[in-house]
Amino acid sequence: MMTSATAPGTPGGFHLYDTTLRDGSQQEGLTLSVADKLAVARLLDELGVTYIEGGWPGAVPRDTEFFARVATELDLRTARLAAFGATRKAGVAVGDDPQVRALLDSGAGTITLVAKSDLRHVKAALRTSGEENLAMVRDTVEHLRASGREVFVDAEHFFDGFRDDPDYTTSVVVEAFGAGAAVVVLCDTNGGMLPHDIAAIVDDLRSRLAAAGLPDARLGAHTHNDSGCAVANAVMAVHHGITHVQGCVNGYGERTGNADLITMLADLQLKMGLELVDAETLAEATRIAHAIGEICNMAVPSRAPYVGASAFAHKAGLHASAIRVDPDLYQQIDPRDVGNDMRMIISDMAGRASIELKGRELGFDLAGEGDLLGRLAARVKAREAEGYSYEAADASFELLLLDEMGELPRFFDVESWKASSHFLRDGALETEATVKVLGIGDAAERSVALAEGNGPVNALDLALRGALRTVHPQVDEFELLDFKVRILDAHHGTDATTRVLVRTSACGIEFQTVGVGPNLIEASWEAISDAYTYGLHRVTSQAA
Amino acid sequence: MMTSATAPGTPGGFHLYDTTLRDGSQQEGLTLSVADKLAVARLLDELGVTYIEGGWPGAVPRDTEFFARVATELDLRTARLAAFGATRKAGVAVGDDPQVRALLDSGAGTITLVAKSDLRHVKAALRTSGEENLAMVRDTVEHLRASGREVFVDAEHFFDGFRDDPDYTTSVVVEAFGAGAAVVVLCDTNGGMLPHDIAAIVDDLRSRLAAAGLPDARLGAHTHNDSGCAVANAVMAVHHGITHVQGCVNGYGERTGNADLITMLADLQLKMGLELVDAETLAEATRIAHAIGEICNMAVPSRAPYVGASAFAHKAGLHASAIRVDPDLYQQIDPRDVGNDMRMIISDMAGRASIELKGRELGFDLAGEGDLLGRLAARVKAREAEGYSYEAADASFELLLLDEMGELPRFFDVESWKASSHFLRDGALETEATVKVLGIGDAAERSVALAEGNGPVNALDLALRGALRTVHPQVDEFELLDFKVRILDAHHGTDATTRVLVRTSACGIEFQTVGVGPNLIEASWEAISDAYTYGLHRVTSQAA
Repeated sequence: MMTSATAPGTPGGFHLYDTTLRDGSQQEGLTLSVADKLAVARLLDELGVTYIEGGWPGAVPRDTEFFARVATELDLRTARLAAFGATRKAGVAVGDDPQVRALLDSGAGTITLVAKSDLRHVKAALRTSGEENLAMVRDTVEHLRASGREVFVDAEHFFDGFRDDPDYTTSVVVEAFGAGAAVVVLCDTNGGMLPHDIAAIVDDLRSRLAAAGLPDARLGAHTHNDSGCAVANAVMAVHHGITHVQGCVNGYGERTGNADLITMLADLQLKMGLELVDAETLAEATRIAHAIGEICNMAVPSRAPYVGASAFAHKAGLHASAIRVDPDLYQQIDPRDVGNDMRMIISDMAGRASIELKGRELGFDLAGEGDLLGRLAARVKAREAEGYSYEAADASFELLLLDEMGELPRFFDVESWKASSHFLRDGALETEATVKVLGIGDAAERSVALAEGNGPVNALDLALRGALRTVHPQVDEFELLDFKVRILDAHHGTDATTRVLVRTSACGIEFQTVGVGPNLIEASWEAISDAYTYGLHRVTSQAA
Repeated sequence: MMTSATAPGTPGGFHLYDTTLRDGSQQEGLTLSVADKLAVARLLDELGVTYIEGGWPGAVPRDTEFFARVATELDLRTARLAAFGATRKAGVAVGDDPQVRALLDSGAGTITLVAKSDLRHVKAALRTSGEENLAMVRDTVEHLRASGREVFVDAEHFFDGFRDDPDYTTSVVVEAFGAGAAVVVLCDTNGGMLPHDIAAIVDDLRSRLAAAGLPDARLGAHTHNDSGCAVANAVMAVHHGITHVQGCVNGYGERTGNADLITMLADLQLKMGLELVDAETLAEATRIAHAIGEICNMAVPSRAPYVGASAFAHKAGLHASAIRVDPDLYQQIDPRDVGNDMRMIISDMAGRASIELKGRELGFDLAGEGDLLGRLAARVKAREAEGYSYEAADASFELLLLDEMGELPRFFDVESWKASSHFLRDGALETEATVKVLGIGDAAERSVALAEGNGPVNALDLALRGALRTVHPQVDEFELLDFKVRILDAHHGTDATTRVLVRTSACGIEFQTVGVGPNLIEASWEAISDAYTYGLHRVTSQAA
């Protein structure tokens, strides 16, 4: 029997173990191609995680392919790659089990096996005996260790099982260590634990392991958010001596999700003094969280701790006044430690203090301009009541500010526009738009353009660009990057107020504009039209 | 000096205190009209909360109006209404302070005062002395008690303050109780605490209060989610003797939000044995969370514990196989306890087990139909790769199933459709659509219709309805209730794959259909066209 305190080669320090590519992908709505998985893996490596669980080779075809391509397409700098799988089937010799064979074939240096540790599950789901389950654990761990792999064991339903039958559940843990597992991970698979439960059970297990001659056995925690306590439970486990935590970036995962890996990382490093990654790496956390969100096609929730767009965004007038004195009065950490920014939110709660701070953010010194600030605050409140949202449309807010200052830039005057989609039985769809504008000032010419597009909004964008390019050739450098639609008053069906946010890049800068209207086309026109105005304003100001 | 153990009239049991209408509304993107606030208050009352903090009358005009209208427009069955405000201004007599006056004028029976309890904030933000701050607390609490109001004190930045200067912070708490406060609420205003910090500090405060002759003083907790531990911190506080928790439905609030009130309620009642509301009321939690989300125009995140659409949705094939044996094997509670449902997610992880269970959910017995299940699973995977999502479109999934069974219902054949929007300089916008269809079977007539609408999608909906109504008059009972747009591949700008989900009601049933296309119009057409097909199928099946 091998000693199991730490298998040779297992890093002695704390393990930050990411399972975004395996447990995370069990989230409703999340689908990753192999290319996506490789891209996410590179980002996880940049984040400095200790382990990347890449998937379940053999069981999930896309994962088999991932591990096959890893050798030539993935160059991990610091992270180790782990394959996930299960103990051998009941009643089958481990050498004959194809699922176990596939784990070895994946080539992964680390293999994490899920093992039943709740006797009720052993009987009802596996339909076998407690003894056979222990043998399944022992055989599979030994088999993999004999091939030189590092082995972790995920004790499934550990906490529920421990409450039901602590002796049996502990025996599974002891068996795993005895067979050579480097870490046994205590999984709150159904997510039902509360932090004080975790504390009590970890302490109890710890004394049982000491009594069994395994005082230094390395334990891990794998928590879910069904009780809203995934991160807290993991943190509590660490507070009680655990040195390996598993989670997913952006809290992805089955049902309510896994513990958010970056929230755990920031909590452990910035508040509990664990040096898991270096400071420069932690400052990349926000960028990495959002980049992974892009690949997964799931925006990071704005309220996400540390990395969310709203995490350091202050709205209450009371807070704004204090922040003008000292930002740390209302912030728990310096947002730059995790690569985020402090922002002032402009809304109908915005008092003059908020608008002044926002203006400062955009490069305007409005100190002492009481009247202007008051008028602007009133105008923002009124427009927000109509459905506008300036919270994510700084460029539209800036145009509002310039307008109140009597300096609204104007480059074109719209005479008319038209967009139409025509579907024919043979399947052809024709979408086109026409735009007619009058120029302003020196270039006061009338310009008309027709464009075809993939849809009415795309066609309008191209047509407006076409109408402007003779006088303003810079518009050919503009690119509409992102386009978000929000149907307000959705309960009114298809005739509902629509808000569109458009993100544009123009000659090196990116900005967002907003449009509101009774339908998508009108709202989009306004956002796009503002985008061209703002873009031309910035471009011509730079040139000046 | 009044005894403060419990002011006369304060409920002796546990306090579930909701601040959705005050702290919750500080969330970025959340704006509530007075009518909205009244509607939310009624729902909170249905939820059985002990207190509803209605806002800050005097400071926020909309809140002043809310409290004025409450007398005639709000009939609370069990909840008590509280007004939020602050201690008197430094250096101003409490009787002369208009902010305090406004709190009394609101008529609220309960007033919750935020008081600085962190000495650094007293000096930097209030620019006054620790002594004056204690007097501000004492004067304001006594003044409000003298008018017969129940008074709670929110000790702002309590935990940070206690760590910095436990003697001063404790003195604020003692002062508040001494002046007659019924509850002093310990606020983790910046959200930086971890659960073990909460435990240690609450225990320490408790012994200091005992030493000060206040062993039974009633404490509360008000937590934020900046460290991902808001709910856990509140739960830990309760585990250490606190009997009053504050939170917001759906976790709304400044920055990362407040503790999610319903998550706390479910954790405390279902796991810690506290009987806060009766079981029938708890079973309304999901409905109420979503209804409040509707009013706030912020969808409940699908991963939200207990009430989220995904909270009990199982995706992994492994889990589906076990659940077929016993749902409780992978669920921490019975979803019906909180009014939610277990769902099988149809996705490319869907094995035959998931599709069979889904079919059963929809009323089809597919046991033993191996080929059909296999074909359907393959078709779902293929379509999901194109952008379709059946997770929220059961009606479209059912049509797919019927198609695979060779029983796809068809009521019309589309010859062509056209939609156009025309904007003229005088501000007029003309939007119209034409639809030409051929009938099926007995009613094989050609039908054409023109309709005008608020936008191209609305116009198409009305035109299709017009084209179908002669042969199928039931379509006049159909109503498109909701319409969600998702731009996939958003980084491609305006020519991006678009997915539309449409919710329709038809003759007493509601259902969702999905459409995908390179632009909104095409995607909407598909979803709407499916909705009419499905609706007519259900209506004619019922009639049969």
